[in-house]
Amino acid sequence: MQTRLSHFIAGESGIWRIRDMKVVSGDGLPTAAYLDIRPTPADTEATWTLRGVKSNDRYTTRTEKSMLQATQEGLGRPEATLAALIPIKKNDAWWLLTQDERREIFEERSNHTTIGLRYLPAIARSLFHCRDLGLPEAFDFLTWFEFAPQHEADFNHLLSELRASPEWEFVEREVDIRLER
Amino acid sequence: MQTRLSHFIAGESGIWRIRDMKVVSGDGLPTAAYLDIRPTPADTEATWTLRGVKSNDRYTTRTEKSMLQATQEGLGRPEATLAALIPIKKNDAWWLLTQDERREIFEERSNHTTIGLRYLPAIARSLFHCRDLGLPEAFDFLTWFEFAPQHEADFNHLLSELRASPEWEFVEREVDIRLER
Repeated sequence: MQTRLSHFIAGESGIWRIRDMKVVSGDGLPTAAYLDIRPTPADTEATWTLRGVKSNDRYTTRTEKSMLQATQEGLGRPEATLAALIPIKKNDAWWLLTQDERREIFEERSNHTTIGLRYLPAIARSLFHCRDLGLPEAFDFLTWFEFAPQHEADFNHLLSELRASPEWEFVEREVDIRLER
Repeated sequence: MQTRLSHFIAGESGIWRIRDMKVVSGDGLPTAAYLDIRPTPADTEATWTLRGVKSNDRYTTRTEKSMLQATQEGLGRPEATLAALIPIKKNDAWWLLTQDERREIFEERSNHTTIGLRYLPAIARSLFHCRDLGLPEAFDFLTWFEFAPQHEADFNHLLSELRASPEWEFVEREVDIRLER
């Protein structure tokens, strides 16, 4: 059985150079120079490690998924030399909502998938879940994005749209980490 | 931060005596005499340990949750001396479905919550998630039920109804463990 777990390891070496780290809300993370992504934990001491699992869709409908699959591109494109790691923690009020209430805020009121679709295929994205790893984790999700330098302004605009949405009223911790390969 | 993780530890001692263990589908589990439920792993070697986290609702709507909350009772009632631990693994086909497709099978076609509601408050229930613990686990969920001896036949009927539903076509491993306090 293959693990769906990834470790985002910040420290003195790694494939990705950390260009910038900005606290959007809540506590930040210690400064580090490089980041590696691996299925296993760091061999040596890391500045910090964030863990997350790829999992099943939580809100996406089949119609939305078909639209995403028709236009999205995968990670690792040679031209996508920039990346962003954005760990997010939502508050207790969010997690106490029922599924229909969370879906309504996520899509019907915040257009999360609809907004994301407009930036495809330029922005490639992958989502990792931390909330149910068993031990208390600092974040609920890790979002990872890859794009070419000419799409960085588009990516910033995508984030502005999402951060202005009703869904983001439930975000209590968010760090915006920018990287370059 | 309090852990939402529970360990179901089977071995030579424990609060719950294992009366019976039946394989419903897939592989079984080694025979054991007792079971304990603890936030931390076993101090000594266990026959087997299953782990799971309490998490947010996955399919329940606010209307359904209000009905559940109006009638359900909690675990640990003195008269509820019988229990069942039913670990379940669903197949890849289930996990590749989108949220709307899983919800439709779970409730609109299988009446999972509607069936459960009919057995309240006699049967108390708690759900633990294993699928996103990070490492490959043997099951996706652990369901735990408590009831008084006079409701055991009702509980068996509840299980028959659920196992005959379209949702159960996606269950690839299920073990039915009966216990007594």
